[in-house]
Amino acid sequence: MSMLGNREEQIIIAHGGGGEKTRQLIAERFLPRLSNPLLAPLGDSAVLDIPRGRIAFTTDAHVVQPLEFPGGDIGRLSVCGTVNDLAVAGAVPVALSLAMVMEEGLPFPVLDRIISSIAEAAREAGIVIATGDTKVVERQRGDGMTITTAGVGAVREGLRLDTTRICSGDVILVTGRIAEHGLAVMSAREGLGLQTDLLSDVAPMNGLIAAVLDCGVDVKFMRDPTRGGLACVLADLADDTGLTIEVREAAIPLSGAARHAAELLGLDPLSVANEGKVVMVASEADAAKVLAICHGHPLGKHAAIIGRTVSSQPALVELVTRSGGRRLVQRPYGEELPRIC
Amino acid sequence: MSMLGNREEQIIIAHGGGGEKTRQLIAERFLPRLSNPLLAPLGDSAVLDIPRGRIAFTTDAHVVQPLEFPGGDIGRLSVCGTVNDLAVAGAVPVALSLAMVMEEGLPFPVLDRIISSIAEAAREAGIVIATGDTKVVERQRGDGMTITTAGVGAVREGLRLDTTRICSGDVILVTGRIAEHGLAVMSAREGLGLQTDLLSDVAPMNGLIAAVLDCGVDVKFMRDPTRGGLACVLADLADDTGLTIEVREAAIPLSGAARHAAELLGLDPLSVANEGKVVMVASEADAAKVLAICHGHPLGKHAAIIGRTVSSQPALVELVTRSGGRRLVQRPYGEELPRIC
Repeated sequence: MSMLGNREEQIIIAHGGGGEKTRQLIAERFLPRLSNPLLAPLGDSAVLDIPRGRIAFTTDAHVVQPLEFPGGDIGRLSVCGTVNDLAVAGAVPVALSLAMVMEEGLPFPVLDRIISSIAEAAREAGIVIATGDTKVVERQRGDGMTITTAGVGAVREGLRLDTTRICSGDVILVTGRIAEHGLAVMSAREGLGLQTDLLSDVAPMNGLIAAVLDCGVDVKFMRDPTRGGLACVLADLADDTGLTIEVREAAIPLSGAARHAAELLGLDPLSVANEGKVVMVASEADAAKVLAICHGHPLGKHAAIIGRTVSSQPALVELVTRSGGRRLVQRPYGEELPRIC
Repeated sequence: MSMLGNREEQIIIAHGGGGEKTRQLIAERFLPRLSNPLLAPLGDSAVLDIPRGRIAFTTDAHVVQPLEFPGGDIGRLSVCGTVNDLAVAGAVPVALSLAMVMEEGLPFPVLDRIISSIAEAAREAGIVIATGDTKVVERQRGDGMTITTAGVGAVREGLRLDTTRICSGDVILVTGRIAEHGLAVMSAREGLGLQTDLLSDVAPMNGLIAAVLDCGVDVKFMRDPTRGGLACVLADLADDTGLTIEVREAAIPLSGAARHAAELLGLDPLSVANEGKVVMVASEADAAKVLAICHGHPLGKHAAIIGRTVSSQPALVELVTRSGGRRLVQRPYGEELPRIC
């Protein structure tokens, strides 16, 4: 084998040309794993039956490095990221599109694992990969891939997700332990030399969200705290509502391993990305019920009420620390480390 | 100014972090150009009203180099590529998603021109950019960007686009001169040293397609011949129908400039990408009417009937040359030059 590896076992430029080589790539590697009645015709568009009414539409580009990390990979991340964006908008996810830009030299075994992971996450979320595209770019480091997913969902009737409905005294919940995706990816990066058992939390949250919404509780807001973490969602909430968001540090679910990793890396867990969590705002009357539903779902075991909205001005995010002090939580400026999702 | 240029005037890693810097990028550069009632709320999903029950859904990743080329740029290409995929599927394009992966170092003036070009193409096509995402990756050559668009459209009622309806004697049309996108991009590449007046044909074809379909003619198949060119579409037609596709070289619209450029580059114009053309199959009874409608549209002035389906076996694509000889047209293997769309 040459130093470049066996060219038959990796992506080459011709795979992106749209001709015979592309057809072969799709037929041999994608269709056996992702096949479904929508994708099979291989036309340029899929046709979906959506119950008459309103649809939700969203997109995410995924550039995570490394492509495979503890607890997941870029394929699982791409499916879950878009499923979760639809679900927090109050939609039932129906179909995803999948566009892959692969670097020349990407080994087929890596590609195959990622496609299988996409298929598994799609099954878990109960959605189909309806349409796709593949492109190939020149070799850079020989291991690159970005995946962009877009999703359509059917908007649930009768929901009133609307930040203008949030008022003083409403309750803020998070469905589980924070910061695990970002810390797991960072710990997997070459050179950080961090030993940890942390796994990414990447998961489709539409099942848990459906369980909550099906009970008819009055949820006013949902968001998945990805890039920018919990801090970014809370800062957006304060901006959008004009209310102060008061959260208690001791109430925020955080594993010992995550706390330790964040300390080693010098990161604030509040600003680290999650990929399997939802922040919800509910009226005080319904908060206990929402919490109980979360606790009954496998992805919500560690759900907790972390704070509430307060009418004090100016509208800020305040963290009540374990020692009883108060500090302001800022919206992260950029990102502590790039390519986390 | 340092050798790296003014960092304030280019994309930096922090723009991709999802925090304050990302918010600023969106607010200052994207929203002023793309703003519309759907995009403005900046939630993670857009909500669309789709009038009918069935929607078409498609995606394309765009990796063209250079980002700006004669007749267009990656922004216009991204909008038109997805609009055209929806339109040839018989759908009225409604909304697009826009996911940009930018390389650190991308100059703001380039980004601004591309966003403006996206806005202009969207207006031309009559669709909205409903949702989006931006990510930033490390510097490679400092000029990189990929754009992935996905699109949803409302499927027209009563269309019967279906290759199983194609029978012997049906007529094949193309809406204009071929190969101009691919040749214009290649001629713009550094190092090729090719002087030409060729412009990319990149354009939204939904208007012309609507003009044809609104007349109630029996169109059985439509496809935009992008990567792999006309040759790839004809090869797919032969495969899907089991019929031989006979096309006359002299009937295929090709400008003198394109013929000359293809000769210099050693390329077969049949295999070169188009981004503003449609191949249609219609019954012989309706072909003249389809042609007349095309000729009446600004994007169809050079439309032509290029051949027909023949029942001879095996099912191949045959080109009747100018000199009266016959040669087989093969599906391109890969692509003569990468990153064309």
